[in-house]
Amino acid sequence: MAVGTLATVKSLDPVDLREIGAQMILGNAYHLHLRPGDELIRDFGGLHRFMGWDGPILTDSGGFQVFSLEGLRTVSENGVEFRSHIDGSKHVFTPESVMQIERNLGADVIMQFDHVIPGQSEEAKARDASERSVRWLARCVAALDALRRGGPPPTTNLRDLPPLPGTTFPLPAPSHPQALFPIVQGGIHPQLRREAARAIRSIGDFHGFGIGGLSVGEAKPDMYRMLEVADAELPRDRPRYLMGVGFPEDLVEGVLRGVDLFDCVAPTRMGRNGAAFTNDGRLNIKRAEFRTDPRPLDEGCDCAACRRFSRGYIRHLFTSDEILGLRLLSLHNVHFLVRLMRDARAAIRAGTIDAWARDWLARYHANTRPVSTA
Amino acid sequence: MAVGTLATVKSLDPVDLREIGAQMILGNAYHLHLRPGDELIRDFGGLHRFMGWDGPILTDSGGFQVFSLEGLRTVSENGVEFRSHIDGSKHVFTPESVMQIERNLGADVIMQFDHVIPGQSEEAKARDASERSVRWLARCVAALDALRRGGPPPTTNLRDLPPLPGTTFPLPAPSHPQALFPIVQGGIHPQLRREAARAIRSIGDFHGFGIGGLSVGEAKPDMYRMLEVADAELPRDRPRYLMGVGFPEDLVEGVLRGVDLFDCVAPTRMGRNGAAFTNDGRLNIKRAEFRTDPRPLDEGCDCAACRRFSRGYIRHLFTSDEILGLRLLSLHNVHFLVRLMRDARAAIRAGTIDAWARDWLARYHANTRPVSTA
Repeated sequence: MAVGTLATVKSLDPVDLREIGAQMILGNAYHLHLRPGDELIRDFGGLHRFMGWDGPILTDSGGFQVFSLEGLRTVSENGVEFRSHIDGSKHVFTPESVMQIERNLGADVIMQFDHVIPGQSEEAKARDASERSVRWLARCVAALDALRRGGPPPTTNLRDLPPLPGTTFPLPAPSHPQALFPIVQGGIHPQLRREAARAIRSIGDFHGFGIGGLSVGEAKPDMYRMLEVADAELPRDRPRYLMGVGFPEDLVEGVLRGVDLFDCVAPTRMGRNGAAFTNDGRLNIKRAEFRTDPRPLDEGCDCAACRRFSRGYIRHLFTSDEILGLRLLSLHNVHFLVRLMRDARAAIRAGTIDAWARDWLARYHANTRPVSTA
Repeated sequence: MAVGTLATVKSLDPVDLREIGAQMILGNAYHLHLRPGDELIRDFGGLHRFMGWDGPILTDSGGFQVFSLEGLRTVSENGVEFRSHIDGSKHVFTPESVMQIERNLGADVIMQFDHVIPGQSEEAKARDASERSVRWLARCVAALDALRRGGPPPTTNLRDLPPLPGTTFPLPAPSHPQALFPIVQGGIHPQLRREAARAIRSIGDFHGFGIGGLSVGEAKPDMYRMLEVADAELPRDRPRYLMGVGFPEDLVEGVLRGVDLFDCVAPTRMGRNGAAFTNDGRLNIKRAEFRTDPRPLDEGCDCAACRRFSRGYIRHLFTSDEILGLRLLSLHNVHFLVRLMRDARAAIRAGTIDAWARDWLARYHANTRPVSTA
């Protein structure tokens, strides 16, 4: 998924994302609740229509964001009281209020409200948060059922908004019910992860599963081990979503461990910083060596940046602080990850995923220093 | 012309400009000489290929820029010595060196190096600069002839650069000779403008004519009067280019006085500041009243921003500092001017230009306070 926290994938247009072949966009309930407000988005006919994207959207619940507000939040069994990072205003998120927010946003997949803790937390703390997340899941399910019984999704009340003239995106509110994904927590403790997965499955039959609380400071081998536990515990015929991950190498490692869905700000954030993903590792376009380089960012890439512009030109855009540079690198990096996952799917179908991943990782790592996924 | 000072129209892509129907892009010899360097651009096959634009390009000579460097420059009959606004390095522009730079850039139309003065300059100062500009024109003509006799345009030496793989822009170096446009100066003094136009026409038969030194602080009626003088003195079958102008209303006033070609940073600069041109005047998208407004920026506009996004969404992008907002307003404003000039051409052909301009100006001014074109 391309990350569109604030109802826009930074520096890209929905048309770019369509051309790239992006299949899904992620929005964020915390950020959109604060700005511009989930009720405003509901009044515009929902997130799809508001942002001009007619493909699938998933909204994260904001659990990760409110727990990142160290010192600005208080956790209780009821929920989390926190202050906005924008203006310091006071807010309370509960499983019930988050379901209302995500219903207002109208995404196709909505994540439960969960309790996120740092990656290296000790077992007692991890158990507390993991078990609370399961209890909050049950409350999310009940709250969503009550909202559904209360009537159709709020966005359908707004179908009679006048269509934007000549729009190329006919964007009705989604007619299907929103799919609620639970989130498996448990820190880096296999037994907690196992218990969480089982407790979640006892609550209901879900369309897919989030794997949360990873890529938050723990070591990579710990993350891989937790994915293997989840792989063993979760049904194989439902998508598993590894939240907040990641870099190209993390995606390949995740796919090898049964993950289907990822999101990360890396392609756009790194792109805005001048870093391009290539099959031979990362490339920093600001380096002097690219000044006279007529080659595209990544030889063999067919994205709109590589088809038309040289490294020398894109470096010029960055050294001159020109906005087009941010867009071209973001576009290339999102395209790179979409193509990587397309290649992985083809390798799975061909039964060659292990060899494909081994070869890909060897070539990529030969030129890239490992970095934190934080 | 869309303004692409540094080999990019700020926040837009050449594909956007094609879709908008932009016919020509302006680059700047001063800026491109300093960064990334005209010789580098020559080595990339020229400006068209460097920036991925296969339509016509005009380069301004940098006259306006070096004379804006108050305190950083010394003028002599030979040329101008100045310090770079980027790093303070020392440079000399002469008619000869500017012809070399513009030839390296490889635009289709290149402007002479001229002596630009403030709009309200008194007659003696204006005469000095205007007569110097004519002498410099003669040197530009001679220098360009010498360069042409010296061989084909430098870009043709680089045809064997490997093509960018799968490029959708086959961009050979221009095979036609570059057209040199003289620039009529003379401040706000009709007699000087008349003398300058006649002196220029005695030097040679040019493909088109620049009208310079306007929209630099003088009153609007003065500018209009100078356009009327130029209209009477310049051949009707050659394009007249009013340099650095302007806002929508200035374009319409210019067309009424025989101007064919304009350039101005207004559509992109104002767009980045949140201002959108509409047929009912300018609109500041950041205003609170647009928060819940489902209408497009300009009703009846068919640009890519108006076809797909509401004022409420674009306001959200601006209040959240999202890059897409800059692009959408820039795109809309450039589209607005391109469409305005298309409408003006149609009215000229239909013989209704006076009535069309009167009606358009009345509607536009009813909602817009006049502003400086500076």
